Amino acid sequence: MTGTVYLVGSGPGDPDLLTVKARRLLEEADVVLHDKLPGPEILGLIPEAKREDVGKRAGGDRTPQSVTNERLVELAEAGETVVRLKGGDPFVFGRGGEEAAYLADHGVPFEVVPGVTSAIAGPAVAGIPVTHRDHASSVSFVTGHEDPTKDESAVDWGALAATGGTIVVLMGVGKLPDYTAALREAGMDSDTPVALVERATWPDQQVATGTLDTIVDARDEVGISPPAITVIGDVAGERDRLAEFLRGYGGDAPDGEAAGIESNGGIDG
Amino acid sequence: MTGTVYLVGSGPGDPDLLTVKARRLLEEADVVLHDKLPGPEILGLIPEAKREDVGKRAGGDRTPQSVTNERLVELAEAGETVVRLKGGDPFVFGRGGEEAAYLADHGVPFEVVPGVTSAIAGPAVAGIPVTHRDHASSVSFVTGHEDPTKDESAVDWGALAATGGTIVVLMGVGKLPDYTAALREAGMDSDTPVALVERATWPDQQVATGTLDTIVDARDEVGISPPAITVIGDVAGERDRLAEFLRGYGGDAPDGEAAGIESNGGIDG
Repeated sequence: MTGTVYLVGSGPGDPDLLTVKARRLLEEADVVLHDKLPGPEILGLIPEAKREDVGKRAGGDRTPQSVTNERLVELAEAGETVVRLKGGDPFVFGRGGEEAAYLADHGVPFEVVPGVTSAIAGPAVAGIPVTHRDHASSVSFVTGHEDPTKDESAVDWGALAATGGTIVVLMGVGKLPDYTAALREAGMDSDTPVALVERATWPDQQVATGTLDTIVDARDEVGISPPAITVIGDVAGERDRLAEFLRGYGGDAPDGEAAGIESNGGIDG
Repeated sequence: MTGTVYLVGSGPGDPDLLTVKARRLLEEADVVLHDKLPGPEILGLIPEAKREDVGKRAGGDRTPQSVTNERLVELAEAGETVVRLKGGDPFVFGRGGEEAAYLADHGVPFEVVPGVTSAIAGPAVAGIPVTHRDHASSVSFVTGHEDPTKDESAVDWGALAATGGTIVVLMGVGKLPDYTAALREAGMDSDTPVALVERATWPDQQVATGTLDTIVDARDEVGISPPAITVIGDVAGERDRLAEFLRGYGGDAPDGEAAGIESNGGIDG
């Protein structure tokens, strides 16, 4: 009897932002295939005996997608209940769609367990609503990490700028200078607020803020490294208004108090 | 001592897709302010004594946003721990940004607890990944429910079409004929796949599929009513490839078997 594969989103990293269903599946699955993106706190919840890291192969190279796909089918055909755990949501730039298609093509039953996407939660916990009635009637999500097998950028930054809505870039730390320049060239105001949120909801969350003109310097000054979310648009300016009374995550309280102490504190016990 | 307000996303409707944190907060809060969007199953988890419905006022009119804002401040100033429960994610077209700003302006500490957004989860549980390496390098979320106080549509459908990415419309059942026409006029191929997912993850989930040309008829044939998510783009065609082996939600198995029986079944017990 073929086992079921669960394509499960882990959320941004705080184990409390796992869904109830994801939390239970991590306990009940026979095998959990994962990479590094769910983060150390969530990976730490999974018993060592059922963890299988498909992020790196021996030697340090990335595991090809085809190897992960084949492993999912192999385990399911052996009757195992398999969780494929992915950072954020499995269908937001996580190649979950490709894995689902491979499973279906091979007759393996699967279920999608959506997660809290870092693309929305990252800005949110830093005090930035990706939509706002006064500022943004749409929000677009793109990846800054281009597929190296594609010849040219598939992202039309001019069209994104023309929407007038918020733009959220996943995996966009390295190419920040390129796409901020592209957006300015497309006519977006240089003073448009921009924020970077690194490791949202992790204990070492960091935030950098600026404008289309200044964010590259701010990135370097704060020392933002991947993984991080970039949010571009007037909504990024809301953080200034909200930060003083915003609780929950991050060591970036405006008066220098270590708000990090409150992380998972308060009512969460 | 002022209480804290938690702006909490409930996810699409299945209580299993609440986050661990949201589930705990519903138990620990003194008061839960909600409207109807979280759905009957989640609202049923909240003890009657702490529920306060701010969706409708006596007489059937909608509660003005200002009344909800003031009530949040009033409760917090009385020292209560307050959950403001919102369908999906609180910062995706939920006016959570406005509520956060009002709280900050009135010196009330608050925390954002992101949820699984229906905009991603709705398509996902119907077998539609909103991004896909082969089909969509961006995804844009817009609302089909225009602010009636605005004179003209704030959404630039032409710019959205020009991105070449997936378009997801929230609250877009009624205006489906308008924006599908706008997208065709903007040059989007009439054969572009479109799907509607009503009450995603609820026991009475329904799905209708078609193209930019045919989806209005499909909507009427299936009898799709709000709330529903519209997903427009080549990814909507993936459902045909995935549906046979897709498990979890919905009574729409292609061979007529009641997949609904499996809803919350299997490993979920």
